[in-house]
Amino acid sequence: MTQMNPFEQQSPILGVKKIIAVASGKGGVGKSTVAVNLALALRQYGSVGLLDADIYGPSIPRMLGAINQKPQVDTQQNIIPLSRYGIKVMSIGFLVEENAAVVWRGPMLFKAMDQFFRDVKWEPLDYLVIDLPPGTGDVQLSLAQKVPVNAAVIVTTPQNVSLIDAKKAIDMFERTQIKIAGVVENMSYMLNPDSQEKIQLFPKGEIDSYLTSKKLTKLVEIPFHPHVSMGSEAGIPIVESYPDSIESKAFHTLAARLKEFVG
Amino acid sequence: MTQMNPFEQQSPILGVKKIIAVASGKGGVGKSTVAVNLALALRQYGSVGLLDADIYGPSIPRMLGAINQKPQVDTQQNIIPLSRYGIKVMSIGFLVEENAAVVWRGPMLFKAMDQFFRDVKWEPLDYLVIDLPPGTGDVQLSLAQKVPVNAAVIVTTPQNVSLIDAKKAIDMFERTQIKIAGVVENMSYMLNPDSQEKIQLFPKGEIDSYLTSKKLTKLVEIPFHPHVSMGSEAGIPIVESYPDSIESKAFHTLAARLKEFVG
Repeated sequence: MTQMNPFEQQSPILGVKKIIAVASGKGGVGKSTVAVNLALALRQYGSVGLLDADIYGPSIPRMLGAINQKPQVDTQQNIIPLSRYGIKVMSIGFLVEENAAVVWRGPMLFKAMDQFFRDVKWEPLDYLVIDLPPGTGDVQLSLAQKVPVNAAVIVTTPQNVSLIDAKKAIDMFERTQIKIAGVVENMSYMLNPDSQEKIQLFPKGEIDSYLTSKKLTKLVEIPFHPHVSMGSEAGIPIVESYPDSIESKAFHTLAARLKEFVG
Repeated sequence: MTQMNPFEQQSPILGVKKIIAVASGKGGVGKSTVAVNLALALRQYGSVGLLDADIYGPSIPRMLGAINQKPQVDTQQNIIPLSRYGIKVMSIGFLVEENAAVVWRGPMLFKAMDQFFRDVKWEPLDYLVIDLPPGTGDVQLSLAQKVPVNAAVIVTTPQNVSLIDAKKAIDMFERTQIKIAGVVENMSYMLNPDSQEKIQLFPKGEIDSYLTSKKLTKLVEIPFHPHVSMGSEAGIPIVESYPDSIESKAFHTLAARLKEFVG
């Protein structure tokens, strides 16, 4: 029996023009928040899908106010993604109980990812945004092997403890030959609600010099504001709930830069 | 060939009295910060070791100012843990390059965990604090199967998006019959540096009612303060750098509660 090169299995997703993967080295840096708001901001450039591939902690159903919803299956056994705020959405969270621990082993993950790409009726889409799990594990490898990703976006917070993990994600994308559009610096600072002075929630590490040395772009700095996480909790992302806020504008800047990057 | 029950492989770590696992459903909630400061606060009750088992994102070396340090190996091929602030420390971060992506598959993880328990010269220790990777994956399963954990601590931030993942970690510990000491609510609120008024960084979700319904204890609420992450960046944890701060006192409360729990 000959061993197949896993990259030879790579094939486009039917009817999907551009695939953008949102990744992070560690969790809790706002990756899903970025993925959701990026997807919403991309609507002005075409049709958008959002795949929540964060198999261990799918946050997208809650962030889009779609918990306890179930996707339909059509007569050809295709899964019909849900529609929220004008985008198509699919999440492992629609398939499993919110409180249950999903203890997936590698091979099961590969199979699940495949179903998300092949058995979900995404077409036609201009952009599919994929919210990856944090870190550098099996899902990310699987993604690199299965579909042609046009751009990876790495989300990090400013401090070095977060940056060291972001570097690993960058390393992984380089090794798997996925093009990196750049880095999003999230929770960059907070404006004091009284004085409007900047509060540096997390100390600024070596992020800028690192990006320069790697010839990587900082796509945008997104400030922290309690209404961003409030929007995620309430199921109305900030791009929708506070369209004129600084944070919302930052997401639109990000969308514009990605549109340009993927061409 | 008979299939072994993996739990039959479970055996104590030589010379270690109590094992405390610090877990979280998702990353970025401050799990490693809690593990480090808990370990330091436990010093008043006995000898303490800290095992950084966060294989995908080991933060402990940086948080303890011990990056680029290498543990020694003795004549019996035992790994000698480093000593920082009076505690014994071991981390996968001492063994791999900080920037390299560690793409571990399940079986390699099991092997690595085993070495951390069996080949590191921990003894004698009153407390071994284990900083688990976030989520509910192979390392956590491996831990449950390999060593008798006396208490699990689950770290979460106040909002539901974090709580839903914390619930999964709780579910996993219940399934693997590991005793849960309780939950740490981290980044509970921030005091405005000007007015000292509380700023709710993350909206308070259903955490309190959930804990009540599950008869679980909230061990402590730890406020957010920029000097906590600054301490982590600088390699001097808050319990050491600002021993009289509110945050530091919260970690001492946590240590006292855990001492009581493990008996």
